[in-house]
Amino acid sequence: MNAEDQLIRRISQRVPSQSGWASGTLRLGIGDDAAIVAPRGGVDLVLSCDAFLEGVHFLAKTHPPDSVGYKSLARATSDLAAMGATPRFFMLALALPVERSGEWLGEFLRGMGRAARSLGMRLIGGDTTKSGAVAINLTVLGEVASGRGLTRSGARPGDLIYVSGVLGRAELGLKLVLAGKGRRRSVAAIVRPHLYPRIRVALGAWLAGRRIASAIIDISDGLSTDLTRLAEASGVGARVRIGLIPATPVPEPASRLLGNRRLNPLQLALHGGDDYELLFTVPRRKVKRLRAAPGFAELTCIGEITPERHLLLVDRHGKAKALKPRGWDPFRR
Amino acid sequence: MNAEDQLIRRISQRVPSQSGWASGTLRLGIGDDAAIVAPRGGVDLVLSCDAFLEGVHFLAKTHPPDSVGYKSLARATSDLAAMGATPRFFMLALALPVERSGEWLGEFLRGMGRAARSLGMRLIGGDTTKSGAVAINLTVLGEVASGRGLTRSGARPGDLIYVSGVLGRAELGLKLVLAGKGRRRSVAAIVRPHLYPRIRVALGAWLAGRRIASAIIDISDGLSTDLTRLAEASGVGARVRIGLIPATPVPEPASRLLGNRRLNPLQLALHGGDDYELLFTVPRRKVKRLRAAPGFAELTCIGEITPERHLLLVDRHGKAKALKPRGWDPFRR
Repeated sequence: MNAEDQLIRRISQRVPSQSGWASGTLRLGIGDDAAIVAPRGGVDLVLSCDAFLEGVHFLAKTHPPDSVGYKSLARATSDLAAMGATPRFFMLALALPVERSGEWLGEFLRGMGRAARSLGMRLIGGDTTKSGAVAINLTVLGEVASGRGLTRSGARPGDLIYVSGVLGRAELGLKLVLAGKGRRRSVAAIVRPHLYPRIRVALGAWLAGRRIASAIIDISDGLSTDLTRLAEASGVGARVRIGLIPATPVPEPASRLLGNRRLNPLQLALHGGDDYELLFTVPRRKVKRLRAAPGFAELTCIGEITPERHLLLVDRHGKAKALKPRGWDPFRR
Repeated sequence: MNAEDQLIRRISQRVPSQSGWASGTLRLGIGDDAAIVAPRGGVDLVLSCDAFLEGVHFLAKTHPPDSVGYKSLARATSDLAAMGATPRFFMLALALPVERSGEWLGEFLRGMGRAARSLGMRLIGGDTTKSGAVAINLTVLGEVASGRGLTRSGARPGDLIYVSGVLGRAELGLKLVLAGKGRRRSVAAIVRPHLYPRIRVALGAWLAGRRIASAIIDISDGLSTDLTRLAEASGVGARVRIGLIPATPVPEPASRLLGNRRLNPLQLALHGGDDYELLFTVPRRKVKRLRAAPGFAELTCIGEITPERHLLLVDRHGKAKALKPRGWDPFRR
């Protein structure tokens, strides 16, 4: 067995995986040229791919390797949650400098294994190669009842806009990590959403299964950018009330460690990336039913969809200004 | 629309793609958080992923960008051919330095579009990000009749071993390219298999559809390495007759341009990577039926499967020596 095949074996031993012939939806798992799946009748397969690159999405010297493993799979899976799909399988294309194929890889796989177990996913294929920097590419597969998959394009004027959780937390955590303060015990809980994001799988599946949401997207690049995407795809606009946005507080230890820089919770919440909360719209007649949603207490209505195709931020005096997409954009010049 | 979304739109305009809702196997194409597919009853979905990285698999200054686009998709699809699947869809995760997002990207997409058209594939999703070097990750999807997908693990003692095409051609082309001679007109035809590999889709699908092959793998890392994989997966060994191996000739212009270095065709054929020919085993009772295979004239029987679990190379005097996997292995130290 050559060194690459040994590495593949090591990966599939450390991460929940399925090799060889299997029964059920998965027919053939990791270890051959390709995997084979056969969804049951009445089930659609949902697929997405996502790159997580050293120097772009994480820094190898700054970010703990188990976080890199955990987060790379979690963030890829967030795209399945945003379709209302239940995550099932994943493939890992891993490019690795030889010097990271030892202890670093072990910790990386531990984090990825933890994410896979908590998300209910199994590794069914992949590809490994050496490279100058770590490059992680994940393909994730989920299932959704036929025709129930939710898109970003179904929002209609009058629909209410909801977000899950608190926004801006991952951006605040990132600032601490980049300032070299990420390992301080006093900010462990503040840094966690950046290192180990929670993915709203149950909420997404519930919204799709009950046909509650008219449109949905995950907030990966910031509320301003992802709401713009949802509105553009739906051919609508939106009015968001500033006072309703569940912006992260900036706790004292964080602001102190960041040199008392003035951190504006609203800016963090509007433009901070990596939260992986769900942003979705609900027709008014269905809003009552939302009370039965998993994690309903963490849902916040932040505004409504409008027919005019622009996004407005409304302050407490009723004054409106344009909301521009100013979240993460790798190709902005 | 932000710069990343503009780039995604540009990609999907330049490459055969499907966006939005669709009918048939593909339910939802590129442009949302994820794609949705629903294979017809009686059809299995075959999935594979593959990385193609600057500095590892190609050199941005040496390899024409349209070859990078063409080859990245072709080689990923070779894994589908090696299962007997018919290629249908692909997802592209593209990491790109900003300075390559202009003309280079245009040429890259032209090559990828040409591969997609010739392979009958449509782009259904992806991910783009900036990076210091070009990193291409492809997820490919194909279809095969339920239960007909071919693996590497079905070879049995007595089965005959076949390869398609001529081996070592891509390695010879690589040597010319690395020597800076790849653009000479006199070697254009010799370099082509390295830059624009042909994928044996029709042969793979035929072998699976008729249940002719007992095991199959594509030769991506060299005959010695991929035959070792097939034999290990099947729990068997193999005897290969040196005189039967369809080794590439080394034409005069190539050997002259390479400084008359002694190039051993057998070594090129045994250990050269990137040929993407199919290596498969056929039970003796089915060999006659092979005559109806697409491209039968290009198939060569090179030996047979043995119960003893090692690989032997037999010369014309009947003398046997061990065949070790000495093809491409990114993690060999």
